[in-house]
Amino acid sequence: MSKYRVLIDANDEKGLVYKVSTVFYNNDLNILSNSEFVDKENNKFFMRSVVDGDIEYSKLEKLLSDVLPSNATVEVIAPKKKNIIIMATKEMHALGDILIRHEDGELEANILAVISNYDDLASFVAKFDIPFVTISHVDLDRAEHETKILECLAGFKDIDYIVLAKYMRILTPRFVEVYEDRIINIHHSFLPAFIGANPYKQAYDRGVKIIGATSHFVNNNLDEGPIIAQEVIHVDHAYGWKDMQRSGKDVEKVVLSRALKLALEDRIFVYANKTVIF
Amino acid sequence: MSKYRVLIDANDEKGLVYKVSTVFYNNDLNILSNSEFVDKENNKFFMRSVVDGDIEYSKLEKLLSDVLPSNATVEVIAPKKKNIIIMATKEMHALGDILIRHEDGELEANILAVISNYDDLASFVAKFDIPFVTISHVDLDRAEHETKILECLAGFKDIDYIVLAKYMRILTPRFVEVYEDRIINIHHSFLPAFIGANPYKQAYDRGVKIIGATSHFVNNNLDEGPIIAQEVIHVDHAYGWKDMQRSGKDVEKVVLSRALKLALEDRIFVYANKTVIF
Amino acid sequence: MSKYRVLIDANDEKGLVYKVSTVFYNNDLNILSNSEFVDKENNKFFMRSVVDGDIEYSKLEKLLSDVLPSNATVEVIAPKKKNIIIMATKEMHALGDILIRHEDGELEANILAVISNYDDLASFVAKFDIPFVTISHVDLDRAEHETKILECLAGFKDIDYIVLAKYMRILTPRFVEVYEDRIINIHHSFLPAFIGANPYKQAYDRGVKIIGATSHFVNNNLDEGPIIAQEVIHVDHAYGWKDMQRSGKDVEKVVLSRALKLALEDRIFVYANKTVIF
Amino acid sequence: MSKYRVLIDANDEKGLVYKVSTVFYNNDLNILSNSEFVDKENNKFFMRSVVDGDIEYSKLEKLLSDVLPSNATVEVIAPKKKNIIIMATKEMHALGDILIRHEDGELEANILAVISNYDDLASFVAKFDIPFVTISHVDLDRAEHETKILECLAGFKDIDYIVLAKYMRILTPRFVEVYEDRIINIHHSFLPAFIGANPYKQAYDRGVKIIGATSHFVNNNLDEGPIIAQEVIHVDHAYGWKDMQRSGKDVEKVVLSRALKLALEDRIFVYANKTVIF
Repeated sequence: MSKYRVLIDANDEKGLVYKVSTVFYNNDLNILSNSEFVDKENNKFFMRSVVDGDIEYSKLEKLLSDVLPSNATVEVIAPKKKNIIIMATKEMHALGDILIRHEDGELEANILAVISNYDDLASFVAKFDIPFVTISHVDLDRAEHETKILECLAGFKDIDYIVLAKYMRILTPRFVEVYEDRIINIHHSFLPAFIGANPYKQAYDRGVKIIGATSHFVNNNLDEGPIIAQEVIHVDHAYGWKDMQRSGKDVEKVVLSRALKLALEDRIFVYANKTVIF
Repeated sequence: MSKYRVLIDANDEKGLVYKVSTVFYNNDLNILSNSEFVDKENNKFFMRSVVDGDIEYSKLEKLLSDVLPSNATVEVIAPKKKNIIIMATKEMHALGDILIRHEDGELEANILAVISNYDDLASFVAKFDIPFVTISHVDLDRAEHETKILECLAGFKDIDYIVLAKYMRILTPRFVEVYEDRIINIHHSFLPAFIGANPYKQAYDRGVKIIGATSHFVNNNLDEGPIIAQEVIHVDHAYGWKDMQRSGKDVEKVVLSRALKLALEDRIFVYANKTVIF
Repeated sequence: MSKYRVLIDANDEKGLVYKVSTVFYNNDLNILSNSEFVDKENNKFFMRSVVDGDIEYSKLEKLLSDVLPSNATVEVIAPKKKNIIIMATKEMHALGDILIRHEDGELEANILAVISNYDDLASFVAKFDIPFVTISHVDLDRAEHETKILECLAGFKDIDYIVLAKYMRILTPRFVEVYEDRIINIHHSFLPAFIGANPYKQAYDRGVKIIGATSHFVNNNLDEGPIIAQEVIHVDHAYGWKDMQRSGKDVEKVVLSRALKLALEDRIFVYANKTVIF
Repeated sequence: MSKYRVLIDANDEKGLVYKVSTVFYNNDLNILSNSEFVDKENNKFFMRSVVDGDIEYSKLEKLLSDVLPSNATVEVIAPKKKNIIIMATKEMHALGDILIRHEDGELEANILAVISNYDDLASFVAKFDIPFVTISHVDLDRAEHETKILECLAGFKDIDYIVLAKYMRILTPRFVEVYEDRIINIHHSFLPAFIGANPYKQAYDRGVKIIGATSHFVNNNLDEGPIIAQEVIHVDHAYGWKDMQRSGKDVEKVVLSRALKLALEDRIFVYANKTVIF
């Protein structure tokens, strides 16, 4: 008995659920859960099923592809630990939250390494027996620094996701293209408010009564990639911007870990610079 | 072209989605939305679909019943305004919220009447051109009072839901049985905390930091029916119990209106003293 | 025995609390509640006390002014109903929430009139026995229309606050200056995200997972006045922008009513385009 | 220049703020923040001030005691790291969150040791260079086991707080009395709902739509001590009780860390089985 996650997106048309469920039925598969969504505006159909039964995943993928229209994308995934790289700079809270969850067996992930442009976090990461790589940006231009990181990453095989756990440098299109829809960032504001540097200072100056954090896939426009998860907390006039920053940490770590888990469980579809999440 | 809500519950077995989607496909119905849930513990399957196409609803119901196992319940509903009765006592906020939404065209409902054991709200309800019936409990025992209400209700035909918008009297089993799973109550606490009288006073005495409200179907155990919706707000030491009561009103009205809308849109399944909500 | 709200702001310096509490003590006033805040960055002190005792409010104001530095502002307010004007366009939900609260005796306010540029809401407002004034903008340029509104407002005396309950036209500096820090608006987004027209459409296009509403005083930059209150709700991919708009209404009305109550209870200080709220 | 936290509680009477602020003024102390609360029902006054200036803390305490009524309690505290013991059983999430915050320099605390009745967490705690003590309860009755823990605790001096980070055994009155109002527990439900064992199972069986966690001081009635902090998350029918348990962990750790920080910053007054929190 194998258990699979089946992810399908296609242009919407009548009969898609019928066709998929016919394949499941004819192959004696049991549906454990089933989620569908039709985006009427864009005429797009999305479906995520979890099934179990006696079938090879490649065979199931072929059977589904055969009955579905040629525009459909079908993925059949056997749940297993995904390989992730974490990139950080100096802050410990978001990284630490992921490391504890990993240690606690809560994440379907192997953490291959933590990469940072500083070595501040080296001894902290070492506690968890995870490789730590410092790739300093000092005396390098952005392209040179990124080349070094890309070379480092090339040394790991089958990276599923790169998690930016408060990595405080901008990635260029060259980098982003290599890992399209696979780089998960945490931005310390309720996007699209306060794009760019020091959002807590911006929030303080504007006098907001709520602050937030946003986890999103990275694309080539700063802080404009598809949003995966957002959360907020209330603040008041007594919060200086450093108080906002301190309180904001708790939201950042929660939101980043939530987004990472959604990705590891194959729950996210990306299209039209948005996410569909089952 | 007609639009239908299809509600199915059944013991779980392989092929249910296949069978339902085959009926939809063979009858050229378009699936606008589809939600499924399997309760593994109780081996129960729930499905709600919204479809449109050219078919009589009774024919669709028959076709589905024919392919589904005999334990299945199938309902095909053509969306239309449901008939509701509101029962209240003296408080205006929850009743007022429903009346405004009704006035604003937001509810799929005809409000047949507001019934109260006092006449305090009579002139308020009159503003909205809705019949107001006072059925005083004074000088009557509980059974006599309830008999009068039941007689009044018998004068309205096709009552879909009775909404208790802070109706402050307990209904007996005799009443509840007549309208099983059709009486929606708002209880002014986060159930199951603070069952019974004056929950804000109880919450204050206990020193809680959060208060809430719960909307539920009424069954024969006080405040123990299937929960539909809950919401909370934060409080602190500066809240006396009357402050909690005042702030709690805002939660009560939101939660009751939310539950009512779920019911009017046929989104609620009841079983095992719980709700499945799509 | 009289009860007063005492509002003080001043440049921060040692001894302010001492001086104020000395006046209270020497005049045998009882402090019912006391809130203070020092904004260290701007070196500003804010205090709101509620006291009761036997003293004329003008005498108390004088005594406090005498001991406080000349830069201080002192207000002693005897709680009473404030006079408000509501401006609306066509939407009922935010207006309706205020009218119900008013009807329920929950607001310390007299509603002098509702003014709209359409007559859609006339019969609704009439239910509540509140004057409704239609001032159409048709065939008028912005200045002419505003002149008519200002003339109408001049006919009411002692307007404390103007509440824009989804009034969908921009006010010019000429208007805003007349009622500085006294016009309370509800903007249907989590400011500063989605300034301007159709914020729900903007939010939908951006693919956010949270939407919100912001109540603020109106100044001369669109949607950039001092924020009084904000609230949010979670949404997901299944929300089209009209669903966001529909769900957003519930947040809008809650936030506007909350801001209005804070104003009516003299709990808001405005400075540096922000609010301090006790 | 020294910085002090001044905590005062007393029976309420006129002039308390005046007397305290007079002492501050006469000794040239600067008030950095000031919070007061009067519980009218119980006629109790609470005040927390943060001041700085040139004075010995014992002298300040004496000056305040001299002017305040004899029923008043005055504490002047020079902020410094407090000594805490963490007790845990097998779960890592709440403990891990505290250890990361400690590592990150976010807590005003020295963690003297982690004590557990199992050794499952030993290697985890060792990563953080914090002493781990296993005191097994196997083959011991409750009194014998507790005696061993009390003996262990007696070996540490100046324990300020004992934090029960999912310590899954009940403490007896003998233990609680030694550390009255100094033992901080996290209960994995929204108290007072679901007191006792397996609250997530209880919540699942009841069909709630919200689950929560409660941090409280431990007294001699199970789960009935003064509540410090509470938080909730929404759940739906798709959550089995193990899903609730998993999601609940994120609330538990947040609430416990929040309560701990409030205690470390001397922000909590306990009285009448409740807390006043500034």
